[in-house]
Amino acid sequence: MEHMIQFFKNDRFAERVGIELLEVSEGSARARMEVKDHHLNSVNIVHGAAIFSLADLVFSVASNSHGTVAVAVNVNITFMKAASKGTLFAEATEVSRNPKLASYTIRVTDEAGELIALFQGMVYRKKDKIFP
Amino acid sequence: MEHMIQFFKNDRFAERVGIELLEVSEGSARARMEVKDHHLNSVNIVHGAAIFSLADLVFSVASNSHGTVAVAVNVNITFMKAASKGTLFAEATEVSRNPKLASYTIRVTDEAGELIALFQGMVYRKKDKIFP
Amino acid sequence: MEHMIQFFKNDRFAERVGIELLEVSEGSARARMEVKDHHLNSVNIVHGAAIFSLADLVFSVASNSHGTVAVAVNVNITFMKAASKGTLFAEATEVSRNPKLASYTIRVTDEAGELIALFQGMVYRKKDKIFP
Amino acid sequence: MEHMIQFFKNDRFAERVGIELLEVSEGSARARMEVKDHHLNSVNIVHGAAIFSLADLVFSVASNSHGTVAVAVNVNITFMKAASKGTLFAEATEVSRNPKLASYTIRVTDEAGELIALFQGMVYRKKDKIFP
Repeated sequence: MEHMIQFFKNDRFAERVGIELLEVSEGSARARMEVKDHHLNSVNIVHGAAIFSLADLVFSVASNSHGTVAVAVNVNITFMKAASKGTLFAEATEVSRNPKLASYTIRVTDEAGELIALFQGMVYRKKDKIFP
Repeated sequence: MEHMIQFFKNDRFAERVGIELLEVSEGSARARMEVKDHHLNSVNIVHGAAIFSLADLVFSVASNSHGTVAVAVNVNITFMKAASKGTLFAEATEVSRNPKLASYTIRVTDEAGELIALFQGMVYRKKDKIFP
Repeated sequence: MEHMIQFFKNDRFAERVGIELLEVSEGSARARMEVKDHHLNSVNIVHGAAIFSLADLVFSVASNSHGTVAVAVNVNITFMKAASKGTLFAEATEVSRNPKLASYTIRVTDEAGELIALFQGMVYRKKDKIFP
Repeated sequence: MEHMIQFFKNDRFAERVGIELLEVSEGSARARMEVKDHHLNSVNIVHGAAIFSLADLVFSVASNSHGTVAVAVNVNITFMKAASKGTLFAEATEVSRNPKLASYTIRVTDEAGELIALFQGMVYRKKDKIFP
């Protein structure tokens, strides 16, 4: 999946937020985000949108890993536990896939393995190839 | 609501992403994000997580506007339309509120007023005051 | 939209639950459910699944009203307020639609007009005509 | 958990729909629904609301299994695959729980074990005991 890793080097938002892709295989992906000051909100905990961004990256990588363009159409995220430091991890698993739609579950955990957030995402799968 | 505006000056993630709070009143808020290169994903459209971040800011401001701490527990977001440039706007409206839980609808629109995403968020309301 | 009303006469689940379709036009629909004993759960309030069923009917009617088959792929429902008697109403509004996907917001209210639940649903639109 | 089984005998909506509770333990539950004519919609597939009802029952049983009243506040359901006959099963797993909020994942499968729907639900936990 070297080409997927190259592909996601162009994701400027993930770079801006500071997310590092660790692994990718067909239908799954794993990433991490080391908590920095710029991830915090006004009450000094990691911003929900930073957690979403981490989960969204592996969602995007996993759903595009089959080689055709997948576009996010719906996401549901539940926040279980606050985090304020250390490293957060996200792991995407493919739950279902047909030629048009696919669904993924992403678990965001902290260093102790505790669940920080649960993310359920659906993509619409286009016919366009990622690498024409 | 000057104190809310001050409060959100401490939101370092919103600042990192480049979101500007425009208005806040009890239960509602409005913000904008001028699309920059760092908001784009690998296929040059605005990243879903950037759109989420914009919506999440007004969700947070609106739900904390009553003066007690509100913590996001669940969000559902539907992406309607891709955006790649210009300025995006988000507006939060309070849908329901009791002493423990409250719900908000956030509409993200582009300069032409077209709907880019619809965000439905729920908070758990703590007893802690924002300004003790 | 007489044909839509006929079409939904075949919805045996809606009939079983006791839902009455009141109105349908392109992209929207309205229905009601008079609360009966069989809608109640173990603590004598209207079952979340009964409220979902009412909302789901207008979602289905509104999304199929354009004449091509629309299949529900995702729903998010937030329950705001308990109900235990009287009549509940559901109204569906089309939020967005392209040839493949469409989204609807359904508000469930009681007789006093208070919001009982907010339902956000997405359909996948097939090419099949409802009436060949 | 005999008392939970007794408790859910009072769920008139589950009875009306035709759902049978199979198992309950702390934080989890399993049920089944034999597909009958009254579960079908206008195009002869199992109604989304019937599938929701099945999932919602185990969600309710699992979240109330700790002995204090749990009230559904948000549900996200994704429909993966149509079903038209046979028996459907739902299984609830507790994902997280604190004194105020808890989250559950419910998988709805058919006889072949294929995933029909994935349901993510959140409850607000009251202080009231189920059996005073």
